[in-house]
Amino acid sequence: MEKKELLYEGKAKKLYETDDPDLLWVEYKDDATAFNGEKQEVLAGKGRLNNVLSSMLFATLDEAGIPSHFERKLSDTEQLVRKTDIIPLEVVVRNVVAGSLHRRTGTAEGIELKEPVVEFYYKDDELGDPLINEDHIRMLEAAQPEQLSGMRTQALAVNEALKHHFGQHGLLLVDFKLEFGTTADGNLLLADEISPDTCRLWDEKTREKFDKDVFRYGLGSLQEGYTKILKRLGGA
Amino acid sequence: MEKKELLYEGKAKKLYETDDPDLLWVEYKDDATAFNGEKQEVLAGKGRLNNVLSSMLFATLDEAGIPSHFERKLSDTEQLVRKTDIIPLEVVVRNVVAGSLHRRTGTAEGIELKEPVVEFYYKDDELGDPLINEDHIRMLEAAQPEQLSGMRTQALAVNEALKHHFGQHGLLLVDFKLEFGTTADGNLLLADEISPDTCRLWDEKTREKFDKDVFRYGLGSLQEGYTKILKRLGGA
Ligand SMILES: Nc1ncnc2c1ncn2[C@@H]1O[C@H](COP(=O)(O)OP(=O)(O)O)[C@@H](O)[C@H]1O
Ligand SMILES: Nc1ncnc2c1ncn2[C@@H]1O[C@H](COP(=O)(O)OP(=O)(O)O)[C@@H](O)[C@H]1O
Ligand SMILES: [Mg+2]
Ligand SMILES: [Mg+2]
Repeated sequence: MEKKELLYEGKAKKLYETDDPDLLWVEYKDDATAFNGEKQEVLAGKGRLNNVLSSMLFATLDEAGIPSHFERKLSDTEQLVRKTDIIPLEVVVRNVVAGSLHRRTGTAEGIELKEPVVEFYYKDDELGDPLINEDHIRMLEAAQPEQLSGMRTQALAVNEALKHHFGQHGLLLVDFKLEFGTTADGNLLLADEISPDTCRLWDEKTREKFDKDVFRYGLGSLQEGYTKILKRLGGA
Repeated sequence: MEKKELLYEGKAKKLYETDDPDLLWVEYKDDATAFNGEKQEVLAGKGRLNNVLSSMLFATLDEAGIPSHFERKLSDTEQLVRKTDIIPLEVVVRNVVAGSLHRRTGTAEGIELKEPVVEFYYKDDELGDPLINEDHIRMLEAAQPEQLSGMRTQALAVNEALKHHFGQHGLLLVDFKLEFGTTADGNLLLADEISPDTCRLWDEKTREKFDKDVFRYGLGSLQEGYTKILKRLGGA
């Protein structure tokens, strides 16, 4: 596999073409950003931690029968993925109240939800990734109705698998964000990353935060938090 | 019918008990508020205009087979309504992009939607009446699933009836907000008001604004705008 031109550079990753038109070479960067890019820092080792964790989590999902764009890990900071046409929606699944759900509804942070809550955000940095509903999605033609229900179903399946997986290692999966794309043959496929950048993970007992909130709210060392997650999951 | 104790005073109306426990006496006030109460003014005659218009519009809906809490007009500024237990949701229906839909989605103001967009806002002044989705509504226990689908169906029926009615008088129904309640026997019932305070109404051709946006954005005299609507609909 050969790395070709840079296709796209985001806040956390670089995507390169490869000699296979269906595959992309992803490089995880050390950049940390929060609040729609307002807070920004370079944190040595973050790229590796996210790439290793994302690779492990996609492999876990694969074992649970949930396909994704993940093909294989290429190096400490790189992985090979299936190229998709990204649907401009962030799909958030929540098990416990935190962050914007607390601010939006006034419900206390830490309350465990009876049933998971699914949210769709419109992927648009200029608009600040606003929450939208299914009528807005239809209006914006951001996704077809069957894609929307597919994303919801898959996101809930991912939640069940990851909640169980993290739970086995004493971690509480508070919430997480997914992105989906469509492949060349038109199928919906789980894409992007699953990492402590995109999940909230708390210690099941002490409720210590190990995820990007450590960086967002200046609670300590991001790398220490991410390393704790990695160790709990049996990685290094 | 006798007016008894004040039950509740809101930003636009006062609700009184009556000698019939199922009926409320509503007094429309001259107060105008916008931006969640940040902008505030007393505008003489506004209460009458809203009461007369709301009474006419509820009567129009009744003729179209859509029931509501409206019983009858009592005076220039008062009406009798059925008492309900208000569901803490504002149901917004939109035909044309304006206001927060423009800000949320970046879609240009004035664009006509192919299909109406329905939105639910959580009625909570402290939270600023945030947009929520159906999962949030379930989580907050703000409405039962069958109430939610009932509200959606009824709101779309109201939209068809009012769009047609305003259209016959050269007015474009851009969007509007409804509130629903449950009656003593547990049935869903359209409540609150339908007035230029709660609708956006533009001249079909010139797109001149006649509704509360005139006050929100200081475009001229609110009473002049509301009077134009009333005259178009054949009232005085
Ligand atoms: N399989 C894929 N095919 C195409 N694009 C992808 C795929 N997986 C992720 N992407 C996109 O890669 C871009 C770069 O990722 P990232 O740096 O996280 O971006 P962002 O700054 O938008 O968070 C994102 O826009 C993401 O949607
Ligand atoms: N039929 C009804 N039964 C009980 N409450 C009602 C009914 N119709 C409207 N209301 C409530 O009357 C209150 C007063 O109205 P308003 O002054 O417009 O309040 P607000 O300041 O919340 O906009 C609102 O909370 C509204 O939900
Ligand atoms: Mg990203
Ligand atoms: Mg009101």
